[in-house]
Amino acid sequence: MVKNKRVYFFGSGKAEGRGLAKDILGGKGQGLAEMSSIGLPVPAGFTITVDTCRDYYRLGRVFPTGLKEEVQTNLKRLEKTTGKTFGDAQNPLLVSVRSGAARSMPGMMETILNLGLNDVSVEGLAAKTKNPRFAYDAYRRFIQMYSTTAMGLSKEPMEELLTQTKKRLGVATDPEIPAESLKELCQEYKEYYRQNKGSPFPQDAMDQLWGAIQAVFGSWEADKAVTYRRVEKITDLTGTAVNVQEMVFGNTGDQSGTGVCFTRDPSTGKNEFFGECLINAQGEDVVAGIRTPLMLSDLGKPLPTAWKELQEVRLRLEKHYRDMQDMEFTVENGKLFMLQCRVGKRTPAAAFKMAVDMVNEKLITREEAVTRITPEDIERIFYPVIAETEEKLKEAFLGEAINAVPGAASGQIMLTAEAAETARKDGKKVILVRQETSPEDVGGMHAAQGILTATGGKTSHAAVVARGWGKCCIVGAEFLRLNFERLEMEVAGRVFKQGDWLTLDGSTGRIYAGELPLKAPILPQEYQTLMGWCDQIRQLRVRTNADSPADAVKAIEMGAEGIGLCRTEHMFFEGRERQLAIQTMIVADNEPDRRAALARLLPFQRADFEGIFTAMDGKPVTIRLIDPPLHEFTPKDEEGIAELAAVVGLDKEKVRQRVDQLHEANPMLGLRGCRLCITYPEILEMQVQAIIEAAVNVQGQGKTVFPEIMIPLTMAKKEFDILEARVRAVADPIIKAANGKLHYLVGTMIEIPRAALIADQLAERAEFFSFGTNDLTQMTMGLSRDDAGRFLPAYVDPKRAAIFDRDPFQVLDQEGVGQLVEMGIAKGRKTRPNIKVGICGEHGGELESVKFCCRLGMNYVSCSPFRVPIARLAAAQYVAVAKIKEAAKKSKPANKPAKPVVAKKAVTKPSRKPAKPVVVKKAVTKSSSKPAKSKVVKKTKSTPKPAKSKVVKKTKSARNPGRKKS
Amino acid sequence: MVKNKRVYFFGSGKAEGRGLAKDILGGKGQGLAEMSSIGLPVPAGFTITVDTCRDYYRLGRVFPTGLKEEVQTNLKRLEKTTGKTFGDAQNPLLVSVRSGAARSMPGMMETILNLGLNDVSVEGLAAKTKNPRFAYDAYRRFIQMYSTTAMGLSKEPMEELLTQTKKRLGVATDPEIPAESLKELCQEYKEYYRQNKGSPFPQDAMDQLWGAIQAVFGSWEADKAVTYRRVEKITDLTGTAVNVQEMVFGNTGDQSGTGVCFTRDPSTGKNEFFGECLINAQGEDVVAGIRTPLMLSDLGKPLPTAWKELQEVRLRLEKHYRDMQDMEFTVENGKLFMLQCRVGKRTPAAAFKMAVDMVNEKLITREEAVTRITPEDIERIFYPVIAETEEKLKEAFLGEAINAVPGAASGQIMLTAEAAETARKDGKKVILVRQETSPEDVGGMHAAQGILTATGGKTSHAAVVARGWGKCCIVGAEFLRLNFERLEMEVAGRVFKQGDWLTLDGSTGRIYAGELPLKAPILPQEYQTLMGWCDQIRQLRVRTNADSPADAVKAIEMGAEGIGLCRTEHMFFEGRERQLAIQTMIVADNEPDRRAALARLLPFQRADFEGIFTAMDGKPVTIRLIDPPLHEFTPKDEEGIAELAAVVGLDKEKVRQRVDQLHEANPMLGLRGCRLCITYPEILEMQVQAIIEAAVNVQGQGKTVFPEIMIPLTMAKKEFDILEARVRAVADPIIKAANGKLHYLVGTMIEIPRAALIADQLAERAEFFSFGTNDLTQMTMGLSRDDAGRFLPAYVDPKRAAIFDRDPFQVLDQEGVGQLVEMGIAKGRKTRPNIKVGICGEHGGELESVKFCCRLGMNYVSCSPFRVPIARLAAAQYVAVAKIKEAAKKSKPANKPAKPVVAKKAVTKPSRKPAKPVVVKKAVTKSSSKPAKSKVVKKTKSTPKPAKSKVVKKTKSARNPGRKKS
Repeated sequence: MVKNKRVYFFGSGKAEGRGLAKDILGGKGQGLAEMSSIGLPVPAGFTITVDTCRDYYRLGRVFPTGLKEEVQTNLKRLEKTTGKTFGDAQNPLLVSVRSGAARSMPGMMETILNLGLNDVSVEGLAAKTKNPRFAYDAYRRFIQMYSTTAMGLSKEPMEELLTQTKKRLGVATDPEIPAESLKELCQEYKEYYRQNKGSPFPQDAMDQLWGAIQAVFGSWEADKAVTYRRVEKITDLTGTAVNVQEMVFGNTGDQSGTGVCFTRDPSTGKNEFFGECLINAQGEDVVAGIRTPLMLSDLGKPLPTAWKELQEVRLRLEKHYRDMQDMEFTVENGKLFMLQCRVGKRTPAAAFKMAVDMVNEKLITREEAVTRITPEDIERIFYPVIAETEEKLKEAFLGEAINAVPGAASGQIMLTAEAAETARKDGKKVILVRQETSPEDVGGMHAAQGILTATGGKTSHAAVVARGWGKCCIVGAEFLRLNFERLEMEVAGRVFKQGDWLTLDGSTGRIYAGELPLKAPILPQEYQTLMGWCDQIRQLRVRTNADSPADAVKAIEMGAEGIGLCRTEHMFFEGRERQLAIQTMIVADNEPDRRAALARLLPFQRADFEGIFTAMDGKPVTIRLIDPPLHEFTPKDEEGIAELAAVVGLDKEKVRQRVDQLHEANPMLGLRGCRLCITYPEILEMQVQAIIEAAVNVQGQGKTVFPEIMIPLTMAKKEFDILEARVRAVADPIIKAANGKLHYLVGTMIEIPRAALIADQLAERAEFFSFGTNDLTQMTMGLSRDDAGRFLPAYVDPKRAAIFDRDPFQVLDQEGVGQLVEMGIAKGRKTRPNIKVGICGEHGGELESVKFCCRLGMNYVSCSPFRVPIARLAAAQYVAVAKIKEAAKKSKPANKPAKPVVAKKAVTKPSRKPAKPVVVKKAVTKSSSKPAKSKVVKKTKSTPKPAKSKVVKKTKSARNPGRKKS
Repeated sequence: MVKNKRVYFFGSGKAEGRGLAKDILGGKGQGLAEMSSIGLPVPAGFTITVDTCRDYYRLGRVFPTGLKEEVQTNLKRLEKTTGKTFGDAQNPLLVSVRSGAARSMPGMMETILNLGLNDVSVEGLAAKTKNPRFAYDAYRRFIQMYSTTAMGLSKEPMEELLTQTKKRLGVATDPEIPAESLKELCQEYKEYYRQNKGSPFPQDAMDQLWGAIQAVFGSWEADKAVTYRRVEKITDLTGTAVNVQEMVFGNTGDQSGTGVCFTRDPSTGKNEFFGECLINAQGEDVVAGIRTPLMLSDLGKPLPTAWKELQEVRLRLEKHYRDMQDMEFTVENGKLFMLQCRVGKRTPAAAFKMAVDMVNEKLITREEAVTRITPEDIERIFYPVIAETEEKLKEAFLGEAINAVPGAASGQIMLTAEAAETARKDGKKVILVRQETSPEDVGGMHAAQGILTATGGKTSHAAVVARGWGKCCIVGAEFLRLNFERLEMEVAGRVFKQGDWLTLDGSTGRIYAGELPLKAPILPQEYQTLMGWCDQIRQLRVRTNADSPADAVKAIEMGAEGIGLCRTEHMFFEGRERQLAIQTMIVADNEPDRRAALARLLPFQRADFEGIFTAMDGKPVTIRLIDPPLHEFTPKDEEGIAELAAVVGLDKEKVRQRVDQLHEANPMLGLRGCRLCITYPEILEMQVQAIIEAAVNVQGQGKTVFPEIMIPLTMAKKEFDILEARVRAVADPIIKAANGKLHYLVGTMIEIPRAALIADQLAERAEFFSFGTNDLTQMTMGLSRDDAGRFLPAYVDPKRAAIFDRDPFQVLDQEGVGQLVEMGIAKGRKTRPNIKVGICGEHGGELESVKFCCRLGMNYVSCSPFRVPIARLAAAQYVAVAKIKEAAKKSKPANKPAKPVVAKKAVTKPSRKPAKPVVVKKAVTKSSSKPAKSKVVKKTKSTPKPAKSKVVKKTKSARNPGRKKS
């Protein structure tokens, strides 16, 4: 690529831009160049680069110097290739102008067709095609498209003029309007344009072209496009390319047609040519739904040659791209033209099947197969879905809030955690509906099928806990009115009582009345195969965050290789007896009472650990000592206080006072984590006793146990040293008494910035580090997860403050928090080179964050069971991408030797003709008449077939350009 | 100093340890060595090094190898020097054994006198002195001292035996007990010892010596000593030295005596020889208060030669040490012996006077003078004091809590901020008493003379705000019972009503009933002189934190060179009108209403800024935009809500809802700081408008204005960029409209860890950094200042967890937080080499932290007005110490050329006689009898004269050893 070259020509089996990246040509431009250069039939044209768009904005919406000259040079070349002249009266060159960013991106200006028509050349087209009606219809459509799409005029008045014309003529459909009336309509349209824009409709084809180019660039910053990029988290694109291409027409008769197809079935992934087409039609007909498209396989009868060619194209493209392609084509008078090709979207099931099949077909390597899967593919393949018709869904729809955890769930509304637990025990399905949730609700949340809260965001307590379980959760449903006295919920003007049925779709955030049927997902065999490859490829270990034997079992199913975070405090919430014991400990004002209460908890914790160790036989289990501030365990209501008062034999008032005393201004930065164990060593002693006794017991049953005891919230070396010594002082005698040889580790969380800063000191005695990136993010950024909902959305919204690309609680802030992680690892390894390092925040199951962990050389990540496969994938992709790059480097010289040379040669040509552009422009304005016969083909929208449907209905991108035989 | 040399001899005008540091010899040992080597009359002896004590503990309370041999060698030498033999029956060498750390440190074992006496040598002493009573009294005292001080036996039974002896004899005082009875008492004492220790009282002088050495070492870890080190924040000492010295006696007759003196008056600082003495006495007599000491000047009459010698010693010592010395001496039969010298403690006023006088006398340089002042000197010189007798103080005493801000205050109790403000307006003096304070109380706090809270620590809201004003404040008075309904306070069983008088002594944390008279401090001229030298010496600028014109004026008086932190939000609390305006803004749910409310605040803010700019004419003023979470501004009670509801014309319930909505789980990490300005740009706009309009107006009045607008809580580059652009968008048009040439800066706080990590990015547009180390400490350490009170005390308590040496909110945590500060500066300067860097946390007025700021090359520190002089001092000391070191390096070779050589020579000698120790030991055990005549002199305690008293009453350290003429 030559520096500052802005326009790349393609056509006649060649393409200047061949081998250039999508970043330069855009996806569409790259596809056209590639298809051209491998000899597929592509109408000639040229692509204006993405960088040109970027520069256009950098200059303040001004075309960069030299662009006009390059466009004119390439237009001249296009005229030479097609034998037609742009703006000519007799033999006009008509073009389509289409946008095309590096990634498929709806919302931008799509297409302007038939550009080059004006009052004179329309006559030439009419004469050439011997079809004045076709010519004026094309002109009418061009004026309308250009006025609305490119110039921003309102569409409705133009539609109204069309309707009036039909009314005046007394006809029902557009095709019935005769040529003369269309000609009049063109006049009316132009008048409408003049009145609203203050200047006549441009008759100069060159002016039309520049207007269209400007419109494409402008659409890059259109609201719809910006919103789409935000939603899809697209941050690396800098603009869109513009593709100018000779028109071809699929609606010139029975030997013409148009269609969209996929090299494999995007729904099932089967290796079957799949698509649909229309004979004598343009894409718009499909969108309008006037005619039912044919199955692709039916193309063979009317257009046998084109069908044969298309099948060859399918094979060549898939072999060339080594991935399933989504293609658009037009047949003009029996001749096939390819208008677009790109990697096709697919369902999760299809993604797995194609990836595995292509490896079996030796089309791609296992490493490549691994990169073909996205985290969303994995997530979605697990979610249950609502099995209901659109109509019934519409009926039941109550509102839409934040889709915190995907999947669908039905159940009876319960407004308190207790009610949820009771209902669950009675065998009921429950939807827990709360204003917000707190750790006290965890039992009820666990009992529920799905969780709905009126407040909170994607990182609220409800969302985080539910995500850990892969449990359907919708949060921030501010339109809910909850009445906890009357146990009622009001929404959308309807009152629901506790016990009424509700269905949640956590994937969309939609809430439905009643019990809708759900479908469980069936995991395809290819999922297992591909995940197996991931495990072979990756170096990073993947553990899970699991707090119970059930979680542990689930996590192993999901491929976990150990537990990276077992939160012991969750065990205190399970059942009233445990709750009362921990609460008794908290309100005690002396050590003996605390020890007595802890002694009651000991058997519970030991039993829990026994269950977990048994489930994780042979795998390491990292157990974090008590972490949350004590007030999280205390009773919140009068009843709870009264019950506790009775248990501890204290005055209610006294108990309330003690509970109130635990209130903290900023509990996140208060008495929690290891500060509790420094203050109340007896808590640590009970927990370590439970862990080690459980380990010894399970070991005695022939299992292999690797406990790793983790100190949370460490901030100083001496703090850790004190607690490490206490842990060993409790653990070692138990092991000795059992004549055991239990090997256990003592390590620390790194979740306070200071801990990362002094990690070299901590590593002197800490045997492992686990980065708690949730808290580390909160403290490093001064950002409370529970409170950020009020301003963080604006911070990550590109239409608002746009301060961060992503929510730092979802994707690790590599730039800031990541520095501390990197520093912590480096310092830790400096002191103890073989220190085991992992991460156990929410980020441990997020693609980019896991890759970052790979880059930093961590030993493992730990995430919630349902995210384990994503972490496995991410870790494999990290290695796979490196291997693919390595392989590409080795094979590149042999692979495409001629390409760069061709591109370079082509580039040097325009610079030799600096004076030409002016000449071209003159030529354009002079040309006139020479009518051409052809019909207009409109666009269709293309997306992969949705999971539930068997037929691909529409395609989103432009389809059409017709081409004149000449 | 030779490696591993553990014992240093002194005597006969020489000292092996001359020139060695206190770290090695301890303070007392160093003084003895120094005095010996400059030819002053010092009884001979030797010093066991501090390192030996450290090694003793490292080895687990075991004497290091080689120590015994070295001690024996030196004992032999001492015998040779004195002509006496240790443990000898006829001519016994008696010694004192005294501890001596590098710094004066009460709480350790002080002294054992007359060591070397046993059943045989006591007879020798009796014969030699011809005074059996004296000899047996000395023996009796030795047994008692050794048994209790060295061997840990209880003192009371021995006192009881003494009392019974007197009862049996029918005498009233000890001196009346005859020799024979004392001899019997010695027997009883030894029996008591044997019964309680299980072995006879050691008769071997060598055993006695080792027992005493072990006792001195042991006392290093005694509770009292550990507590003292904690209280005084002494963390750099590793142990104590042991001094073994020949006894001299001041109580042998009228030609003997003992005393303590200062080379200058420690109370006033005047260059007058000051002290007290007793003829024919030992130190214990002073402590017992039986006899009134003479003024030092009265020594001339009874002991003219010794007095003349002492005056010479005074001059020589001050010239030698170039500082005021505190000396102890004994005159034995007309001959003067110096027993101790050390730098004397002094009152703050004396400290300033001496430092300035000594510069004028050319005794020291200005740099040295600057290092002679401590922050405490400065603090204390400013505080008012209670002018009342001890007796009356005792009567009025109610309780003692945490002394948050020193100084004394009297006033009428007010239990609410409103009452305080009203009372103040009525001309009353107020003591505001609250459970705890919040920003809403600031008006009342400001109105009060002193503040007393039932909760909180030294860094609670009350303490921090009060410290900013230098306002007397006592916090954490948990014994208070406040009843806000009945407006009563109960303490020490007494009920105080609102309006009753109370006096606080913030220096001691003591609370008194009633109105006690106070004395205002008078600043000596020398204070101004010395602070002027500080300003000449230092490079670091010192600014102040000031929020009002009054603060600004005060700060300039204190020497501030600008405002480093002007907290704009405090202005919102002053007066109900402002409060209602800000509250109206907060409850508004749309921008126009918010703007309307802000418009009402604008004139107030502008006027405040005008006052500040006027006061700071020519000095920079850094103004921080709104920082605290909005809920801090909202009404807290029903009345406030009702008033606000009326003002904004909303339902009370609605207002309460809006207020409740502002509740945050962790407000410190929530919607505050610049997040408010991102969310509500109109707040920033109003504030910047007020700042710039005020600046332009004040500039128009001929003043020079340098506003620096500071964005708080920045965590991301784009965040800063957005706000900087907004600031300039508001400011520049105002300046332009006024045809002004106002130069202003826009910079940022660095108070979130992430900001330090990405400081290079921030510096691209930020023109200055101000490290907010309060919040930076909170976030870096995950430590809420408001909540840490529950566990941080244990973290900094050396007797408990001892995790930190100091409270990180008082002294900057250089190891952790300091890393981020250093990183932030380095990164910021990498991008913008001349970026202005300062600090505006509480640490900006703390000695060590300011020196750290100097080391990092900051441009300025900013602290509360009352701490400005401390910061000036600290900054000057940083430079001064470096200059002094530099000068010492240059002059060292010329100054004391012989010392190191002498030390080295001395050291090499013992190694040539490896076999000797054994010989010495034998010699010691063989020796016996040879009585000596001498009396026992006991110790007195020495401290500088307190500010209020004119006479020095006691000295803490040992005074005494007598010396036998031989």
